[in-house]
Order: sequence, then C-alpha cells, then structure tokens
Amino acid sequence: MIVEVIAVGTELLLGQIVNTNASHIGAALAERGLDANFGQVVGDNHDRLTRSIELAIGRSDAVIITGGIGPTQDDLTREAVCAATGLEMEFSESYANHLREWWESRGRVMPESNLRQAQHPAGSELLMNPKGTAPGLAIKHNGTLIYCVPGVPAEMEYLLERDVLPRLSAAAGKSSVLVSRLLRTWGQSESGVAETLDDVYRGSTNPSLAFLASGGEIKVRITAKADNQAAADALIAPMESEVRERLGDSVFGVDDETIERVLLRLLTERGYTIATAESMTGGLVAAALTSLPGSSKVVRGGLVAYNSELKQTLLGIDDVSTVVTTETAEAMAEGGRRLLGADVVVSVTGSAGPDPMEKPPGTMVIGVATPDHTQAKELRMVGDRERIRTYAATNALHFTRLALIGKWWKP
Amino acid sequence: MIVEVIAVGTELLLGQIVNTNASHIGAALAERGLDANFGQVVGDNHDRLTRSIELAIGRSDAVIITGGIGPTQDDLTREAVCAATGLEMEFSESYANHLREWWESRGRVMPESNLRQAQHPAGSELLMNPKGTAPGLAIKHNGTLIYCVPGVPAEMEYLLERDVLPRLSAAAGKSSVLVSRLLRTWGQSESGVAETLDDVYRGSTNPSLAFLASGGEIKVRITAKADNQAAADALIAPMESEVRERLGDSVFGVDDETIERVLLRLLTERGYTIATAESMTGGLVAAALTSLPGSSKVVRGGLVAYNSELKQTLLGIDDVSTVVTTETAEAMAEGGRRLLGADVVVSVTGSAGPDPMEKPPGTMVIGVATPDHTQAKELRMVGDRERIRTYAATNALHFTRLALIGKWWKP
Repeated sequence: MIVEVIAVGTELLLGQIVNTNASHIGAALAERGLDANFGQVVGDNHDRLTRSIELAIGRSDAVIITGGIGPTQDDLTREAVCAATGLEMEFSESYANHLREWWESRGRVMPESNLRQAQHPAGSELLMNPKGTAPGLAIKHNGTLIYCVPGVPAEMEYLLERDVLPRLSAAAGKSSVLVSRLLRTWGQSESGVAETLDDVYRGSTNPSLAFLASGGEIKVRITAKADNQAAADALIAPMESEVRERLGDSVFGVDDETIERVLLRLLTERGYTIATAESMTGGLVAAALTSLPGSSKVVRGGLVAYNSELKQTLLGIDDVSTVVTTETAEAMAEGGRRLLGADVVVSVTGSAGPDPMEKPPGTMVIGVATPDHTQAKELRMVGDRERIRTYAATNALHFTRLALIGKWWKP
Repeated sequence: MIVEVIAVGTELLLGQIVNTNASHIGAALAERGLDANFGQVVGDNHDRLTRSIELAIGRSDAVIITGGIGPTQDDLTREAVCAATGLEMEFSESYANHLREWWESRGRVMPESNLRQAQHPAGSELLMNPKGTAPGLAIKHNGTLIYCVPGVPAEMEYLLERDVLPRLSAAAGKSSVLVSRLLRTWGQSESGVAETLDDVYRGSTNPSLAFLASGGEIKVRITAKADNQAAADALIAPMESEVRERLGDSVFGVDDETIERVLLRLLTERGYTIATAESMTGGLVAAALTSLPGSSKVVRGGLVAYNSELKQTLLGIDDVSTVVTTETAEAMAEGGRRLLGADVVVSVTGSAGPDPMEKPPGTMVIGVATPDHTQAKELRMVGDRERIRTYAATNALHFTRLALIGKWWKP
C-alpha cells in the first residue's frame, strides 16, 4: 500500500509555516508499515491542485490531502478532487443542518459561505470532525482511496488517528509495523562507516540500513518491516549485532541516548563526580554536562580559564608561555581536579580562530584526568569559530567516555 | 520565474525529520519576489528521484534540489539529474584533489567513496561549500536552471544565500532591491512592542514593519523596496528614527549586532574585563561571552559553581543553605570578581527543573557586580529545562548591558 500526502496551502510554499503535517502523517504511516514514495506541496490554486491530485492518483494507492477544506474562497480541495476524478459535487443537507446547529449552539448566525463545507464529491463518506466545522472526506475512486482532512494540525491528527489510519491499515490487509533502531557512533567518518558496512547495506532490504550524519556523530539506522513489533525486533537483532561487532567502541549509544546521557550513566555507575577546565570552549563542555536533569548528582562545576593568568593562579600551571599543548591540557585537567574537587576532569585548550593562537585555528587539545590516569589528545578541525568550538566540546565529551570505559587512546 | 524545491530523503517521508529546508527556501524565494507553485519530497530512490526531477523540469523555470549529494551509496541526486536530463556524468580531478587535501589537512585518510562528490553532470558549475565536503551544483539544461545543494541546513543555507539566490534573481531580471533593517529589542513583549508601534505599522506599506520574536528578543524589521540601495536606505531612515524614539533603551542592537557583540563593544569602550559565576546555566553565559572573535581581550573566564560547596570554597559565600536568592546572586558576582580578577562579573543562580530546587522550576536570579555597584534581579520563566536555561543566559547578558549603560533596575 503506497500512500501519498498532498499538503495544500500557499502559506506552505511561502515558508510562512513549516509542513509539520507531512512529517506527522509520514511517521504515522511508517509506524503502521504503510509506504510513502512521494510527498507534494501545492498552493491554493484550483488547476495546480487538480494536477497534483491527478499525479498522486496515478502513482499511489491512497492519497491523503491535508488542507483546503475550510469555508473560504481559497479552500479548493473539494472542487479539485471533483475535477481530478470526474465526480460530481453533491450537497449534504444533513451536514448543512449540523453546521447550522453548530453555529446556533454558540448563539451566532452562520455566514452562508460555511455551507461550502456541506459540499462533497459524489459518494464521499463524511468524517465527523468535533474539533472544527469542516468534515473529513473518504472517497474510493477506481480503486484509489482518497482522504481529505483539514490543515489545522489538531483536526488533521484527530481524523487521521480515528478514521484514516484504521481504514488504510484495513485496506492494506495487514497490520505490519516499521521499527527502527538507531546506533549512534563517534570517531569515524560517515564514508568510513558506510564502507565498513557496505556489504551489509547492499545485502539486505529488510531490515535496511541508512547512514545519517549530524552534530559530529554518524548514526546508523536499522529499519525492519514485519507483522508486529516482536517480529521486527527479531529481524533487527542479528543486523544490530553485526553492525556493533564491526564498529566496536565507536557505537556509544542507542536511539535517544545522547553522549551526555551516556556520560551521566557511566559516572553514576562508577560513583565518580566530574568537572571541567576549559579554555577555547569557554563553558560549552560544562553547559553540556549540566544540560540533563539529575546532572547535579555528578557534576561539581567547572572553571573557564580563558585568560592564561587564571591557568596559573587557579589551576597551578607554572609555565603558560605555550598553552595549546598536550602538557597544558593534562596540567589543566589535573589542576581542575585539585581546584574543583572532582574525580574526573576534562580539559580543553586550543585555537578557535579566526586569528591563530600559537597553532592554526581549529587546533584543539583535549585532556582527561581520572583518579588513576591522565592523558591528552591533539586534534584539528576546519570551519568557522562556532563549528570549531562545538566540535571541540563534542570531542571532549567523547574522549571522556573513552577514558571512563578504559579505552585510553595512548598505550 | 517559477522555482520548484525538491527535498530528497527517505527520512523526510518517514517523518523522522521535518522539512524545514523547504520552508526556509520558500521564505527566501518569496522575499525576493520569486514564485513557487509546487514543492516535492522524494525518498532516496534513483528512479523516483529521476521522475521528480523530470516533473519539476517540465513545469518550473528553476529547480532547487536539496539533499542526496553526500558521499554514501544512498546519495543519488547526481545520478538522478543525469538520468532526468540525459547529461553524462563527469569527474572533476581538481575537486577530487580538493577533497584529498581536505582529508589530509585533518591528518586522516580519505575513504575512496568520497570521490563520488567529485562527480557531477556534464557542464555543472561546482559551488564551493566551506561548511562540508559536498559541492553545490549549478546546471543549465534546455533553459531550465537546476541547483543541487546539501540537505544539511547550515550547508544548504550557505549555498542558497551565496550562490543560488543571486543567480535566480539575476535570471529573473529583478532590478529592484529589497533592503531590511532589523532593530533588536529586549525587555518588552511582542504584543507590547506591536502596540507601541501600531500606527506606524498601519500607516506605511513601503517601508513596511514586521515583528519577529526569537531567542527571547523581539526584532522589529523595517523593509523597503526601491530601485537601489541608497533609495531604500532613504525610505528606511525616518521610520527607524521613529521606532527608536518610541522603544528607547529596549533597542540594543541593529541587524546582526547580537547582545554578545554589544557587550564586547561596551566593555572595550569602558576598558573593563568580564567574568561569570554560574550555577543553573552551567557555563552557557561564559560560552556566549566567548563566542565571538576577540573576546579574549575582555573575557577573563568563569566559574561554574554547580555544587554549592564550590560557592563556599571558591566564591566565599558562608551560608549556602538557600541559594536561589538575590543575596546569593550578589555574593556570587562579588565573589567572582575576587576569584577571577575581573572588573565586571555576572552571576546566575536558580532552578532549571524539572524538579524544584528551593523555588519552582523556572525561577532564576541574575546578579551583576561592577567596580561601583552590585545588584540582582529575580525572574521566572515557564518551559522545559533547556528553554529555562537558555532564557536565563540571555537575560544575564541583557542585565549586564543595562548595568554597563548605567540603567540599573533598582533605584
């Protein structure tokens, strides 16, 4: 069952509103194992809307049209469905009465234009919409299912859940589900991860693999389609094992498990507190560590030693003639442990740019000190100042994880 | 000039991400007077993507394809453009060298699959993308303009502004210019600003007024359309004077002048250094102050005293039995001046939630200490933890500005 969503509204094309209806419907279809190949957006124009509906009818088994069924002159979905299908327009006297009662019950006189909402392509089933005045429409035309729902998200969502999705699932004759598992990795490039998994990617369509890059992470998504959740999980499990075995410690979290969440868990498990000693990131690492509820149980705090004098006076580093070095990063982390009384301290020093400072902009040194061990690592990143600082902060969190799981990067 | 946007990615159809690229591009086109009749979304599938491109070429003057130009196997936009246009695929040896250098400069070995990004339909102009490794593509085919840009929003936006929009405007023969002036305000509600300026808003269409709320600021945008920049500026000037007179000190910056930039300027003018003493914001204020190039000249650093013990040992606050108070915020700011040796210190304490801490979540107290004076202010905000922390950090910067321009909030 291939379903296509048409979102109607000039305001969508103008970028005045974001098309969240399409993503909402897309996620709901995927959850139920219904496929979508295409999505369309079209303005409030009779001819173009008609062409969009014709196109969708020609290539999909079902069409959900959201928007354009209100009472005003630019609500043209009903007319366009008639034009695309050749169906006549009919008028529902009983729905007209419902509309009149709706207005009367609010002590108001109904503008006559509202009767447009009692019009519908011949043979439509009217879907009651208690959140608004426009009824949804369900139409079967030459084997294609057409559903018209309002563009107002709350009204659309109500009719989608209550009427459209159950009918689509029934018509699809199966209650299959689509289940995804996201493996979050760090430390390898997107193309590197893709190469490592190339034969897995090519060798299977269900479950399927996809690669997503965002925020310095590469995410590997495994998606399975099956009759039910348990069957989908069973399809995912062996591929997940294979991916994990190939990617090893690069995989740091699953689904919505961010690096911050992983760190809080690791620290809690080990009974450690943490603090930061930052220079180039200026507080970003501390802000990340304190972003989650419950962080106060393990986060002591942090020092931003932006001016090198503070590295001397507060972190006890004698020589600050050069500061973008592994020696300084290690001394900052150890000095931070003393000053802030934390078990683990992560430090960052470097040159954020645009002007070079000792080393080229984008040079960053990350240090981690634990009760047992201290190490630092120099990295480089190209980009603007914001990107460099964000990358440094993300790396600081990931190197802290490596230290906590005992995978120090130097022998 | 009719422009059509095709957003490529199965994750869009699955509703895993919202199609903000389409709305961003739509708004940018509308601002420049370029029309859009249709929008498309299509998954990572060669044949369907090819059909989408054919459809767009057949009905629009220009096509912007966002997504599908990365290095992995499911990035298929280049191939689909060739299939839809009949153009041969070519390989850019110079771009391949650029890619190799990009990887080498990071001390890493390039996976061979990255060379896909040096492929392009014959006759393409490669658009340099400093924010990523995939170049944008500009193609002219039988009179239709085709632009391929990445799906990553920051990369897409960069190429859109720098390459795509200027070319489209030129091709459309637009001779008039649209010039905007943004007055950034803080401290009044959006409806308050709108009421203050209601008659100005109603009284003029060119220049026109618009109100935008984002990041805790209310921005007033004055937009003029004229034959050239000078004529547009002349239209804007008198309205800007009027708006400034009415809004007074609420206007803190113009155009891209962020509060961070304003603070660095004020501090530099006064010869002051600054530091932070943060609790609930966990480093966000320090990170904001150090976000700009040149901040090292005035920013000393900061202490994140997340655990109250650090407020005692490092900031010298004797009684930490209650910490969400104006007394504590003032003592943190003054203690920060001593510890960090800065002229000005801004402090934040409060309850970020979701669990209450002394006071309801969303309670925040901001303190500012200068060489002459110390004051604090308690505020409240509703929202989730992230929103509350961000709002607290923004307010901390704005109260610092008030202190620096001598507008202390208490008599």
